Amino acid sequence: MTTKQLYEQIKLKKSFLCIGLDVDLEKIPPHLLQTEDPIFEFNKAIIDATHHLAVALKPNIAFYEALGIKGWESLKKTIDYINEHYPQMFTIADAKRGDIGNTSTMYAKAFFEDLNFDSVTIAPYMGKDSVEPFLAFKDRHTILLALTSNPGAFDFQTKEFDGKPLYQKVLETSKSYVNSENLMYVIGATKASYLKDIRAIVPASFLLVPGVGAQGGSLEEVCKYGLNDQVGLLVNSSRGILYASKGEDFAQKAAEKAQELQLQMANFL
Amino acid sequence: MTTKQLYEQIKLKKSFLCIGLDVDLEKIPPHLLQTEDPIFEFNKAIIDATHHLAVALKPNIAFYEALGIKGWESLKKTIDYINEHYPQMFTIADAKRGDIGNTSTMYAKAFFEDLNFDSVTIAPYMGKDSVEPFLAFKDRHTILLALTSNPGAFDFQTKEFDGKPLYQKVLETSKSYVNSENLMYVIGATKASYLKDIRAIVPASFLLVPGVGAQGGSLEEVCKYGLNDQVGLLVNSSRGILYASKGEDFAQKAAEKAQELQLQMANFL
Repeated sequence: MTTKQLYEQIKLKKSFLCIGLDVDLEKIPPHLLQTEDPIFEFNKAIIDATHHLAVALKPNIAFYEALGIKGWESLKKTIDYINEHYPQMFTIADAKRGDIGNTSTMYAKAFFEDLNFDSVTIAPYMGKDSVEPFLAFKDRHTILLALTSNPGAFDFQTKEFDGKPLYQKVLETSKSYVNSENLMYVIGATKASYLKDIRAIVPASFLLVPGVGAQGGSLEEVCKYGLNDQVGLLVNSSRGILYASKGEDFAQKAAEKAQELQLQMANFL
Repeated sequence: MTTKQLYEQIKLKKSFLCIGLDVDLEKIPPHLLQTEDPIFEFNKAIIDATHHLAVALKPNIAFYEALGIKGWESLKKTIDYINEHYPQMFTIADAKRGDIGNTSTMYAKAFFEDLNFDSVTIAPYMGKDSVEPFLAFKDRHTILLALTSNPGAFDFQTKEFDGKPLYQKVLETSKSYVNSENLMYVIGATKASYLKDIRAIVPASFLLVPGVGAQGGSLEEVCKYGLNDQVGLLVNSSRGILYASKGEDFAQKAAEKAQELQLQMANFL
């Protein structure tokens, strides 16, 4: 999917909501545990109930890997289901990979070819040759960690590096990468006040913004500093939507939570 | 496995060799492609032929993920085979993970519980709360990226950060993490001259050193600056051992290459 197509979907749905599929067997409704693949059944119901309210879906790969081969199967079924039934949905593998060149190529194949995601999240620590293999895939997007939503973001990312905060250096440096037009960035909603500086460096890029809801970030602040003329934001919510109810009505309750966010977003567009 | 047990194995085998299982279908002997699981057959033959020469085995997770569910099955069979037949072998999941706290816990479960590896490689960019969930597992080891072997290491890792090179800050900061005794570090052999400064910060830690061989690092230099009184080094070789031959004799040729390295190592002990 191109960013232009993503922008069209945002306008159509009046939403820049990304739903994070951090699906945990201990948190899903107990009645699903009797099905053959509870994770996939849960995802399918959530996706069917919310697809008109969100423009992006973001499985958190750790939650699937923790279940071994069975988890990897649930992930594969989930992404195949999205691509078959909702091809206009922007898909994000939240994987936070990154390795030396030939290894990053293997990860890119895993997420862009085998699983067929539109995008994948990548850590910048290993530098240019760990990121560029992902950028080489046309119309696929590499979402680089810049300023994350967790407390540990203050350990390195915000500290002074070569004359400015490290996250700013990551943003600046990445603009010189080959095929940098395929870059997006992770910017935590809990650090919304930093968005003004960030937009000065990457005015046109899409930002994936986790941390609204459970982690305490504010949608209003994110929009105030983060919106650009192509919207340029994908705001993620995971737990707040997925686990709105543990009953048979879980998908409907999730849709209600998603709609609350979508309506707030429509106001900012 | 404890580091004391690892040290005992190093003394017993006169080797601190780690064999990297970066197994690529395009590079393994063609006759294996007719078997049901060529990756596992290849790994099994390599492990059986080299287990007395190496103290650690390091599957590079990207190479398995790139093959989807089938790759994950080959990985599971490989680690199960090692744990069953060679329980004294130190196993490393070269995965380079790292995410916010609850997600890192999921990755830790994937590698320490589901797959039952002794250790996993982790990227430091997201800070303390992305690393500590891995450290919480007793007698499991978290191998933090400090100074990697690739050219991109010079993009951020060696640049000045808060008064010193970023990789040194990563080493120093990590020593304050809860359960930091479970930390090891990745230090690329291509940066062996940095090892003197590194040993000043982490004198007692094990260092996982990739980059000898194909990437151009020197074993002699690594030993000169990296050895400590418990050896403290695991030097990795992947392609140089795995792909010594494409014929039926591939495992024997791999063992010869491994033995060359082991004999060099014995001289330094």
